[in-house]
Amino acid sequence: MTDNLDQLCVNTIRTLAMDGVQKAKSGHPGMPMGMADATYVLWTRFLVHSPSDPQWPNRDRFVLSAGHGSMLLYSLLHLTGYDLPLDELKRFRQLDSLTPGHPEYGLTPGVETTTGPLGQGFANGVGMAIAESFLAATFNRPDFPLFDHHTYAIVSDGDLMEGVSHEAASLAGHLGLRKLIYLYDDNEISIEGSTDLAFTEDVLARFRAYGWHVQEVDGHSLDAVDAAIRAAQAEQDRPSLIACRTHIAYGAPNMQNSAEAHGAPLGVEEIRLTKEALGWPTDEPFHIPDEALAVFRHAVEQGRTAQAKWTDLLTRYRVAYPEEAVLLDTLLAGELPEGWQEALPTFDAGDGPMATRKASGNVLNAIAPVLPTLIGGSADLAPSNNTQLKSCLAFQCGAEGGRNFHFGVREHGMGSILNGMALHGGLRVYGGTFLVFSDYMRPSVRVAALMGLPVVYIWTHDSVWLGEDGPTHQPVEHLAALRVIPNLVVIRPADANETAAAWQVALERRDGPTALALTRQSLPVMDESRRDAAETVARGAYILADASGTPDVILIATGSEVALALAARDLLTQQGIAVRVVSMPSMELFDAQPQSYRDGVLPPDVTARMGIEAGVTSVWHKYVGTAGDVLGIDRFGASAPYKDLMKKFGFTPEAVAERALRLLGK
Amino acid sequence: MTDNLDQLCVNTIRTLAMDGVQKAKSGHPGMPMGMADATYVLWTRFLVHSPSDPQWPNRDRFVLSAGHGSMLLYSLLHLTGYDLPLDELKRFRQLDSLTPGHPEYGLTPGVETTTGPLGQGFANGVGMAIAESFLAATFNRPDFPLFDHHTYAIVSDGDLMEGVSHEAASLAGHLGLRKLIYLYDDNEISIEGSTDLAFTEDVLARFRAYGWHVQEVDGHSLDAVDAAIRAAQAEQDRPSLIACRTHIAYGAPNMQNSAEAHGAPLGVEEIRLTKEALGWPTDEPFHIPDEALAVFRHAVEQGRTAQAKWTDLLTRYRVAYPEEAVLLDTLLAGELPEGWQEALPTFDAGDGPMATRKASGNVLNAIAPVLPTLIGGSADLAPSNNTQLKSCLAFQCGAEGGRNFHFGVREHGMGSILNGMALHGGLRVYGGTFLVFSDYMRPSVRVAALMGLPVVYIWTHDSVWLGEDGPTHQPVEHLAALRVIPNLVVIRPADANETAAAWQVALERRDGPTALALTRQSLPVMDESRRDAAETVARGAYILADASGTPDVILIATGSEVALALAARDLLTQQGIAVRVVSMPSMELFDAQPQSYRDGVLPPDVTARMGIEAGVTSVWHKYVGTAGDVLGIDRFGASAPYKDLMKKFGFTPEAVAERALRLLGK
Repeated sequence: MTDNLDQLCVNTIRTLAMDGVQKAKSGHPGMPMGMADATYVLWTRFLVHSPSDPQWPNRDRFVLSAGHGSMLLYSLLHLTGYDLPLDELKRFRQLDSLTPGHPEYGLTPGVETTTGPLGQGFANGVGMAIAESFLAATFNRPDFPLFDHHTYAIVSDGDLMEGVSHEAASLAGHLGLRKLIYLYDDNEISIEGSTDLAFTEDVLARFRAYGWHVQEVDGHSLDAVDAAIRAAQAEQDRPSLIACRTHIAYGAPNMQNSAEAHGAPLGVEEIRLTKEALGWPTDEPFHIPDEALAVFRHAVEQGRTAQAKWTDLLTRYRVAYPEEAVLLDTLLAGELPEGWQEALPTFDAGDGPMATRKASGNVLNAIAPVLPTLIGGSADLAPSNNTQLKSCLAFQCGAEGGRNFHFGVREHGMGSILNGMALHGGLRVYGGTFLVFSDYMRPSVRVAALMGLPVVYIWTHDSVWLGEDGPTHQPVEHLAALRVIPNLVVIRPADANETAAAWQVALERRDGPTALALTRQSLPVMDESRRDAAETVARGAYILADASGTPDVILIATGSEVALALAARDLLTQQGIAVRVVSMPSMELFDAQPQSYRDGVLPPDVTARMGIEAGVTSVWHKYVGTAGDVLGIDRFGASAPYKDLMKKFGFTPEAVAERALRLLGK
Repeated sequence: MTDNLDQLCVNTIRTLAMDGVQKAKSGHPGMPMGMADATYVLWTRFLVHSPSDPQWPNRDRFVLSAGHGSMLLYSLLHLTGYDLPLDELKRFRQLDSLTPGHPEYGLTPGVETTTGPLGQGFANGVGMAIAESFLAATFNRPDFPLFDHHTYAIVSDGDLMEGVSHEAASLAGHLGLRKLIYLYDDNEISIEGSTDLAFTEDVLARFRAYGWHVQEVDGHSLDAVDAAIRAAQAEQDRPSLIACRTHIAYGAPNMQNSAEAHGAPLGVEEIRLTKEALGWPTDEPFHIPDEALAVFRHAVEQGRTAQAKWTDLLTRYRVAYPEEAVLLDTLLAGELPEGWQEALPTFDAGDGPMATRKASGNVLNAIAPVLPTLIGGSADLAPSNNTQLKSCLAFQCGAEGGRNFHFGVREHGMGSILNGMALHGGLRVYGGTFLVFSDYMRPSVRVAALMGLPVVYIWTHDSVWLGEDGPTHQPVEHLAALRVIPNLVVIRPADANETAAAWQVALERRDGPTALALTRQSLPVMDESRRDAAETVARGAYILADASGTPDVILIATGSEVALALAARDLLTQQGIAVRVVSMPSMELFDAQPQSYRDGVLPPDVTARMGIEAGVTSVWHKYVGTAGDVLGIDRFGASAPYKDLMKKFGFTPEAVAERALRLLGK
């Protein structure tokens, strides 16, 4: 009887989750048990995927936003035939297993994104759906629907409480992402107890207000879930939310509907009782009935068939649209079209002073034509961040080939959506806001770094020198706070040419995000920097101006402070001091250089060193050493024209020269 | 004619805003011009305040969440008689003026909170309304409505797009904060252009879904706004949102409804045209008609009368409820009841190992009875953060005297609401989540530090040693990233007694926030630390165990790594190495000590120093110097039992001892 077989399958998921958490003595069994039914329906009746090729470009994307329910995902990946042996499920949450506490992208085959920090997966899915629709608009041709897949997610109460999900949901509704279908695990239980303690909003009405198609079903009724997903697929204008009313830890006689089942093993006795109630063998953990496995494993053959059909489509596409196909191959491989660097502009000192944010805008617009899937935008600061691609349209509902994104005042949503776009493949993405508001998107930046996604952040107004907007808008701690995120490269270019080089580094990077910290105010274009900015910036720090012999003092500066260091050098040289100026656009890139290169730039025997940067000083001691000095700003800023602030904070050539003399004991 | 006088008053606000921005050559004239009508109604007909005493405890609170429209607020503060001379309006955005680019709490009389980063003010207001209702429930008595005021805010499209406002709005609806009334400047313009580019949700339906009372009015109709505020005040169960349909830069012939009027001066010519259209003198910037000033200045006398009535009430309250009155005086002065420290527990080594999060929970529960307005909660992690006050109820609608807050999975909202609660006065507040999720609330932490608010953060699970949850939940860069925020004190106690001392430091701090970083895992209670933990922790670092003579090496550790340092010392001592162990719970507190104290703890001539902390190393070079070493974790963590991770990352006594020997060249 089909019904019984279905139940057998569902209970296989349920018991694997129980057993995995119990064996690990840690984890979250309640959610997988509650959502086993709905997820079973999705994975066996709707999800188009190919377990033998998790990279198939046109697969449906599945996101477990409620990442704490990772055993649900691991169970399904194993059961449907991904390269995830049962032994790995038995090593849940152990060192070097493929089944960490929360799903990790790049580690486990079939895991589409790293989740756990709530709300991130919700917004990642929005980014994936955006990517699909952009690639479809760009590469599909009549009778060639190369990109035509859905993006599904399972989202929890916690996901829907997090602000980032509100931001992403509002934007998804605005953009009319009709192929986005989310199952909401509406179990009314969170860690502190009933969701009634803090979460009594009308979720469906809220999503309707965002412009979503909404449904509510019994999450334990396979038929109801089936019908709801069908209706969601049929919806032509809006993303879909299907609220599945479920019971957490469904099937556990004493733990069902209990907050205790959220984040701890059920215990040996409760598992025994649950298995007895399910008619399950109690003496064999990780038991998988053969009949159930056979049902799940259909996915392998179904996937191969679907993928073969698509590969055939692509083969015919190659003939009909050879140029597009070549480009597509490059992009799907994560590569950039050959020779793209030739489009990078260079700047002359004679061009006059230019803010690095403006230089960045010029670079973006120069390379946009040769990088047709370079897309991005700003959190409502495009005119200030210079993120607009002037030759391109906006990405909007009905104009999904547009390359300019209006993210709205939603920095966090932007960051997490960018991650989803990057995860999808085929795109290179960027997003802009003021550097101070990198704080708003920081959780998404962290996950991008953890996943190794090549996202580019355009963070302008990068110091107190933005002036009049005052301390709420003036970053002082942000460069330091970003530099400590592992695998994030922060570049603060000193002029227009360093900015072009920074873009080259950022786009050639494939294993992690890059942040560009750019000025509001104009900076001179330095002659010195022009010759080989691409190479010097890639090394993180380099000698920009040197003394003829051994330097008495080294001035190390970043961004807008490099010109200041050069001016101070002129004053010091007049007094007979031998000064080396080092431009250090990126500490991370410099730290990655061989010791010999680093010692060449900062010779160990020159201990009179001064770091100069309009921000907090704590990260500089590594470079200036015990005998050195740092000119920074270890306090919040102030509202005033920036030249007044430079005087106030001692960032004038005279003040720097004087301080350097003091350091030299003169 | 009243109508004309009203218009004269409204246009006075409008023209002051135009002139202020023009003189500064920088700022946002459009919003003040658009919201001049509605704000005029609010301030002259409803707002109960006392310009001659901006600290009156029962004043209505007014929050300009759209802080970029600061000239609106400055104009009203000047006009209604606060101590803000017209000359200060002429010095808008200049160095050391009282009129910075965005409103700054503590600088300008009458500014209730620092705004500018969007969404913050929205959530601050929710916190203020919570504080009012808690104090009312706690101190009001029949016929003694000591606390009985409204909280108003002006919020913008940008505020409503930010996730933090969604979080706070959902919680405000849940809590039924009926005295919260927000005017939404629905002008359909943001920086990139029409809000149609990114923001087409049905805002009113969304707020209705959150449980708010919603209205929509013509924001330029004084009568309509007046009626809507009345209706909002009459609402007995829900917070209110009044959408005011307005035109940005209302009255400017060429700039009205234009995104260009958002963030730049209108220009001399457009101002002339606007003033001509308004029948305003064009040759006298900052013109204030006497009749208009007279209307606004009624606020002074009205405020004095209202406050006198309240003072009389308080006088009678002192007689009727003398104990409550004494307590109230203490709390409103921002002080703690005398002798409260005696309630702080001490812990014995014999008590066995204890996680510092558990010690923190014990401390909280021990001091809760003597600190009756110490209130707080967690972002749905109370059982893990140990934030629950066991003797107290939950704060809920109808139970506003409850002291346990269920913030939901809304870290950012929690942070900004805590700020609002602290701003209100009378309370000491705390909020908890995992340390890794401090990222989610970072923008609110920054503003707390900027405003100097004494908020306490309980951030548990403070290192990779949280184990199985894996890298998404394991902080590595967070201690470093938090330490760089000016005016935030970060304390990572090494055991239960240091935890009690950390709480004392945090609660005795009145001019800024304090973060407690606490372990998930158990730590031994150290004998050494018990003697004078209160004093030693307050100094940031101290000698916990010393060599008999000059130490060969100094091990400097924080939190859970202190016990490790002690164990390594034992091994090294066996080999004849003289080891000093320094416990450094707080770098900020240590940095604030006199040089002599610092040199005593870290003698300059002992250069063999090793920092030990389970996190990124970059902030440690300042303490270990060029010749020192740091044992840290400069990468993301991994999912596994924590003892396995300690081996993997070299955090065992043997590995530390070996590394120290290497540092000593042995």
